[in-house]
Amino acid sequence: MKFVEIVERLGEDVVAFDVSDETLEIAKAAAIDEAIAGTIAFVAGDKFAGYVAETQASALILPDDEGLREQARQRGMAWVSTRNPREAFARSIAMLYRPFRPEPGIHEKASVAASAKLGRNVHIGANAVIHEGVVLGDEVCVHANVVVYPQVTIGDRTVLHANCTVHERTQIGADCTIQSGAVLGAEGFGFVPTPSGLMRMEQSGCVVLEDGVEIGCNSTVDRPAVGETRIGKNTKLDNLVQIGHGCRIGANCAICAQVGLAGGVTLGNNITLAGQVGVANRAKIGDGAVASAKTGIHQDVEAGAVVSGFPAIANPLWLRSAALYKRLPEIYQSLRQIQRRLNDRS
Amino acid sequence: MKFVEIVERLGEDVVAFDVSDETLEIAKAAAIDEAIAGTIAFVAGDKFAGYVAETQASALILPDDEGLREQARQRGMAWVSTRNPREAFARSIAMLYRPFRPEPGIHEKASVAASAKLGRNVHIGANAVIHEGVVLGDEVCVHANVVVYPQVTIGDRTVLHANCTVHERTQIGADCTIQSGAVLGAEGFGFVPTPSGLMRMEQSGCVVLEDGVEIGCNSTVDRPAVGETRIGKNTKLDNLVQIGHGCRIGANCAICAQVGLAGGVTLGNNITLAGQVGVANRAKIGDGAVASAKTGIHQDVEAGAVVSGFPAIANPLWLRSAALYKRLPEIYQSLRQIQRRLNDRS
Amino acid sequence: MKFVEIVERLGEDVVAFDVSDETLEIAKAAAIDEAIAGTIAFVAGDKFAGYVAETQASALILPDDEGLREQARQRGMAWVSTRNPREAFARSIAMLYRPFRPEPGIHEKASVAASAKLGRNVHIGANAVIHEGVVLGDEVCVHANVVVYPQVTIGDRTVLHANCTVHERTQIGADCTIQSGAVLGAEGFGFVPTPSGLMRMEQSGCVVLEDGVEIGCNSTVDRPAVGETRIGKNTKLDNLVQIGHGCRIGANCAICAQVGLAGGVTLGNNITLAGQVGVANRAKIGDGAVASAKTGIHQDVEAGAVVSGFPAIANPLWLRSAALYKRLPEIYQSLRQIQRRLNDRS
Repeated sequence: MKFVEIVERLGEDVVAFDVSDETLEIAKAAAIDEAIAGTIAFVAGDKFAGYVAETQASALILPDDEGLREQARQRGMAWVSTRNPREAFARSIAMLYRPFRPEPGIHEKASVAASAKLGRNVHIGANAVIHEGVVLGDEVCVHANVVVYPQVTIGDRTVLHANCTVHERTQIGADCTIQSGAVLGAEGFGFVPTPSGLMRMEQSGCVVLEDGVEIGCNSTVDRPAVGETRIGKNTKLDNLVQIGHGCRIGANCAICAQVGLAGGVTLGNNITLAGQVGVANRAKIGDGAVASAKTGIHQDVEAGAVVSGFPAIANPLWLRSAALYKRLPEIYQSLRQIQRRLNDRS
Repeated sequence: MKFVEIVERLGEDVVAFDVSDETLEIAKAAAIDEAIAGTIAFVAGDKFAGYVAETQASALILPDDEGLREQARQRGMAWVSTRNPREAFARSIAMLYRPFRPEPGIHEKASVAASAKLGRNVHIGANAVIHEGVVLGDEVCVHANVVVYPQVTIGDRTVLHANCTVHERTQIGADCTIQSGAVLGAEGFGFVPTPSGLMRMEQSGCVVLEDGVEIGCNSTVDRPAVGETRIGKNTKLDNLVQIGHGCRIGANCAICAQVGLAGGVTLGNNITLAGQVGVANRAKIGDGAVASAKTGIHQDVEAGAVVSGFPAIANPLWLRSAALYKRLPEIYQSLRQIQRRLNDRS
Repeated sequence: MKFVEIVERLGEDVVAFDVSDETLEIAKAAAIDEAIAGTIAFVAGDKFAGYVAETQASALILPDDEGLREQARQRGMAWVSTRNPREAFARSIAMLYRPFRPEPGIHEKASVAASAKLGRNVHIGANAVIHEGVVLGDEVCVHANVVVYPQVTIGDRTVLHANCTVHERTQIGADCTIQSGAVLGAEGFGFVPTPSGLMRMEQSGCVVLEDGVEIGCNSTVDRPAVGETRIGKNTKLDNLVQIGHGCRIGANCAICAQVGLAGGVTLGNNITLAGQVGVANRAKIGDGAVASAKTGIHQDVEAGAVVSGFPAIANPLWLRSAALYKRLPEIYQSLRQIQRRLNDRS
């Protein structure tokens, strides 16, 4: 694609640009420290700004920064300056890269139940199994070896990657992506202790994914005994995440890899849980809260709070306590010295 | 189902009940705070007792508590009072809910080796692959796209959900449930350091699951180099659990999501490991012990102990230490003050 | 296999051996504390040396230790003494055990794209799906129900176990093992925050596995927006490991179960990360470093360092701080006493 076309398509985000060679072709996007001729790279903050002087990229996406523009000019590089370089870079990749997307059609080795209802331009791959009563919207893409249990509904344009499994009665919205190996709507971990051991509580509820949700590879979202487990609009789950039965997750949350939510957890909107965070049964987390990596949340977290540690405390306090944790030997020594000093005196 | 029929079937656990309308129909079970007309809900402890005054449920399962019964009476609701409301609720769900269970029969797209032996009324779903020498008991249900490697034995009534994998020589008891994506009996992480790098140690052992075991979605149970990895009767594993090669787990344990057991760990009976707990190589945990979420167990744990933290310590001590951890900045300040005070004096 | 044949094949590692009965047959390998007649077991360090006096094994692999040899002699057992008993044991298992390995050939229920290129003696199992442009080397073994997306290349002798998924453009070297349920090359967790929510950044990069890499069951290795995610020669990943987009992992690393690497992490060679370790975005870890279980690494780690805790600190310091953590209640008491004492005086 010509660089001028990329600039044109970026549209109103563009602050300024410089294209000395209107025929300049860009083949792909690259990181600025690994870019070769024919690629476009970007600079957002200070961290990679130094690479403008040495990158081999043919074109750069820059912030609104005259110093960087001048550097690019002096090196004879094409550049475009935008208000949000990271977003412009994402949009450039989308222009240059064509993700694998199978053609509409039902593979001859797919198994589709007679009572399933399929929208227009659906793709169902080899060995995919669509059980009774399933409803697929328009342009749904079910990759090879996916299994969809009975009575599942899947909204328009949603993609199910190979080897994922969707259990009975799950409701998936439009524009969702379910990555490979994910399991949605399986039985929650519900048992009742009895004198003869743990007794299975049937999980008669279901999982609901609102529009635009993404579920990472090998993540698991369980259905509850009664009611539903719900994930709100546009919320994104990374890989190997566990969402227990009966959780309620709001919109626009980012839940990073290996996070685990026990049963009945409630999350508001715009929450970020970093990698390996754990949240205990029935805890409630308010809108916009952030938990840093490995945080263990046992109690409710207020909206907007930033928490860390295990058990979770306010992040600024955790930073100070963690810094003192590694000074505990020294603190203990001081204490012993003081004790000896006082004992010597008395 | 009629409410009177539910009460009747609950049998001897029932302490008392009140059915003014013998024709009352219950369609499904619900949580008391979400219940609508036509549903049955339950109250166990104090936490949800307040909802008796406002729930829209048509019938309630109550503990043996005259106050709650009186509230229900005044609202004109049907109720049944039982010794164990949670268990009665679980049994009511089982009466009202019919889980998806495919009919017996071998799907035409299943691949079943000639030497496999199948019991009566077995179901084998589409694209399931049953290798040589596999033995399936009566009423075993193998869902779509499951792969069973050679020489595996599976006991009566055991269910294997879609997309799970059972590796060679694994022995699964009766009445087990293997959830989607679980992998049983794959090669343990056994390598020998050599001058030319890590050398694979062949894993010639096997995995044994006793009767009534449940393995959660995407959980993994590895086979060892020699001997067996064993999970005891009625033990339940949640999702994304890792059981290393050569572990021995007793009966009636509850192992929550994302727990990891390294190689050769020994667990007694009736143990609870909460979410994201880790147990180091060859540690032994005694009967009835409990580890709270995120506990890191490096050493043996005595029977009946409740441990927390990382490294694991007795829970009451951990609670006190954790409370002081967040006061470390204050503790440090006090120490510095004392030091200054002493220095001023001398 | 005859014991004398095992000794012969162990070759130059053998220091000494004693075979009174040249016809002694060994059926399989066993752990010394579980060994029965007809098996071979081994002793490496002190921990299991006591079992030489009581094991039922028919033959023993011993270190170069005359005391142990004498014990074995007195019990009339066959033995072989080697420089590296653990390695000799691994090699003995490999002699005695024949892992399941399907015959070369394409299963009639496999789906192989017309443009795929297959080497010699390839096995492709039932319901495996090989998309367009895939290249498989000689003796590659693709088990049942595996899905390989377009343009993937897989080197000679590599094994893909049942139900794993390899996404587009992934490059897998020779002699790799991909365990069941693993997902390679799926889209990294890359989103750009915008006023209308999180916007997907297309992941146009790829995953590269060098020769001899092993990926554990249900582990996930994501591809990046641009460039590659690379795992170096002979590095081994255990189960349920998450490798974020754009990570660079060196050679001969051992990455234990449930470890999570966020995006852009760089690991050198010969690194060991124990179970449930987490590494934050863009952290760099030097050659030979070791992180003990559950360590949370937020910053760069120097070559050769041994780190523990969360946030990670030097292991010896962590051991001392952790020991004092559980004495925090006592430390706090002492501090209060001192304060009272000083206040009484003044």
